[in-house]
Amino acid sequence: MMNFTFTRKTRETMNDKNSTTLYTRRNFLTAGAGLAATAAFSPYVIGRTKAKDKLGVALVGLGYYSTDLLAPALQLTKNCYLAGIVTGTPAKAEAWKEKYKILDKNIYNYQTFDQIANNPDIDVVYVVLPPSMHREYVVRAAKAGKHVWCEKPMAPTVADCKAMIEACEKNKQKLAIGYRNLHDPNMQAWMKLAKEGTLGKPRLVNCAAAYVDNRTTHWKQKKDMGGGVMGDMGVYSIQGARHAIGEEPMLVTAHFFNNRPEIYHEVEETSMYQMHFPSGALSNCTASFGINSNFLKVNYEKGTLMMEPFSSYSGNKGTYSGGVINIPVPLNNQQANQMDDDALAIMQNKPLIAPGEEGMRDIKVVEAIYEAAKTGKEVKIG
Amino acid sequence: MMNFTFTRKTRETMNDKNSTTLYTRRNFLTAGAGLAATAAFSPYVIGRTKAKDKLGVALVGLGYYSTDLLAPALQLTKNCYLAGIVTGTPAKAEAWKEKYKILDKNIYNYQTFDQIANNPDIDVVYVVLPPSMHREYVVRAAKAGKHVWCEKPMAPTVADCKAMIEACEKNKQKLAIGYRNLHDPNMQAWMKLAKEGTLGKPRLVNCAAAYVDNRTTHWKQKKDMGGGVMGDMGVYSIQGARHAIGEEPMLVTAHFFNNRPEIYHEVEETSMYQMHFPSGALSNCTASFGINSNFLKVNYEKGTLMMEPFSSYSGNKGTYSGGVINIPVPLNNQQANQMDDDALAIMQNKPLIAPGEEGMRDIKVVEAIYEAAKTGKEVKIG
Repeated sequence: MMNFTFTRKTRETMNDKNSTTLYTRRNFLTAGAGLAATAAFSPYVIGRTKAKDKLGVALVGLGYYSTDLLAPALQLTKNCYLAGIVTGTPAKAEAWKEKYKILDKNIYNYQTFDQIANNPDIDVVYVVLPPSMHREYVVRAAKAGKHVWCEKPMAPTVADCKAMIEACEKNKQKLAIGYRNLHDPNMQAWMKLAKEGTLGKPRLVNCAAAYVDNRTTHWKQKKDMGGGVMGDMGVYSIQGARHAIGEEPMLVTAHFFNNRPEIYHEVEETSMYQMHFPSGALSNCTASFGINSNFLKVNYEKGTLMMEPFSSYSGNKGTYSGGVINIPVPLNNQQANQMDDDALAIMQNKPLIAPGEEGMRDIKVVEAIYEAAKTGKEVKIG
Repeated sequence: MMNFTFTRKTRETMNDKNSTTLYTRRNFLTAGAGLAATAAFSPYVIGRTKAKDKLGVALVGLGYYSTDLLAPALQLTKNCYLAGIVTGTPAKAEAWKEKYKILDKNIYNYQTFDQIANNPDIDVVYVVLPPSMHREYVVRAAKAGKHVWCEKPMAPTVADCKAMIEACEKNKQKLAIGYRNLHDPNMQAWMKLAKEGTLGKPRLVNCAAAYVDNRTTHWKQKKDMGGGVMGDMGVYSIQGARHAIGEEPMLVTAHFFNNRPEIYHEVEETSMYQMHFPSGALSNCTASFGINSNFLKVNYEKGTLMMEPFSSYSGNKGTYSGGVINIPVPLNNQQANQMDDDALAIMQNKPLIAPGEEGMRDIKVVEAIYEAAKTGKEVKIG
């Protein structure tokens, strides 16, 4: 019986060990002497008047996810804080200003958005708009010289994703996708296990990412806003299978099922899709707005793994044939974990856990799944 | 936390309670007086010179399943015994005769098979031939005036199943399908739970029935012998979903995947198929000859159930959100359980757990799945 017993302290120590020792909150003030030597490797530092120990984040789009999850999480983060907002609704601006003590100069609307370029308080623009608007605002944020965090799904098409990645590269800004699940320590422990091959090669993944969404006018129900269950919940099950198998799928098949056409007439309510990987491994996955189910089950050559819940806001828990994966980290908030990891990676100029390329990998599969569901045929992924 | 604590004794008592008290092994000898009164309800008794306390079974086809599983199981049964064999291989006849002390007069080949009609030692003919031969031998056994047990899959087509059911009805013989899994007490406890609706309505079933079969010339790899994974392992996952949901599917979708065309060029190696039920419940299932995986996962409105292993020879074990399903019955042998249940049902003229109609329900779905995999489209089940 093997146990993963990382603690929050262990994780911090591991991060510090790999860092330049310059930009962590605890030691920044004493580290001035080394700054010039590492500045050349840190796009964050280039062009800034001074380095910071916390990045200022502006949330773009103040819907449910920003209001109920990201803003509260930004009260818990160590490496970043809620510095600004972008909203088209004056009443929301007023309410947020009061609640989070946001300075007037850090409040934008969609007409004034590009002026954010001149605001040194804002280091990161976090795009939390409907997916159909991600490309436009990621590109504009990059042009404004800001690092960008983009909520998932990255965008409705692979072409959008490419344009977003290119804009960030061209403007020397980092692009991270808001994949909170990949920042969960239990998920990371499982991915480590999968990668180490302890249980032999993976052969079959069964995965469901699904909850009941009864809303009718949210972007999730609207095709032209980038809705549909594949982008929203589907990316979790795609990701679960991709990371379990450690390969990119070579072909997909898919079928969509709608039990409630009165709500889901523009987009799919439930998707059941299969992926075939180069090694022969297969996955059979479900994503749904009509069923509650969240699990990831992997059959390896020499054992099995079951994570349940999987991709839930409260975190992941797992058991496998060698024991339990349940890291006793007080995981107060997945989104806080995610934003702290991403802010630290930017400050330290380290690789992001979920860069734009990772988001695009999933959208590549999503695009193929739409084609497969439409035609009923296998769709090869180039 | 709810526990199912049937014991073997409890099950026997339950059976006895519902029985006529006439034909169980323990009380037959003292029950003579009641015989005439119940004989009219018992096709088994009609036309027989006397009732028995154990039925004589003849195995037709002495391949792996008869040799390694059924014959040993028939040494453990209480309500039936190995009385005869039908084989085309004289050397097998000789070996079995010696090992199991089978009388010469109870040994048949395929030319002499129909003479079994005149043999009072044989009450039941158990057809364990490749599926393509089931129809012929079930019909001939029924015409010979014998009850019939037929190994799964019942037959390659629904038309075959109908002909088999009709032949048995016409000849007033019982027809049971060799669904060992439905006779497992843990499976039965779960089906009871599902039926009682303790956890609310079922919404999603994920199920896999799969093992690695490396043989190359078995009927399972041969199309014209009724091979393919859908009939062999697929019926378990179909059955798991059907019994979890308590409905018959109204449509199916399916895709087949072959990793080893050198072995599986005539039939599918792996099938991933979906079923949509009238209530809106969905299932996403896998059957494979290329992967080891056996589980049944059900998401109900108010909870979840996980059986693993599911459909394995060693039985089923389950946990659900209300506790554990693990009946402490010493389940020495699934096949012995199955044959004892079926023999008792015949002797008592009670409903069979898996009559021909139950086998046909699965083949109806299998037939639709082949059509769905071929066309890539949804196939409605009439």
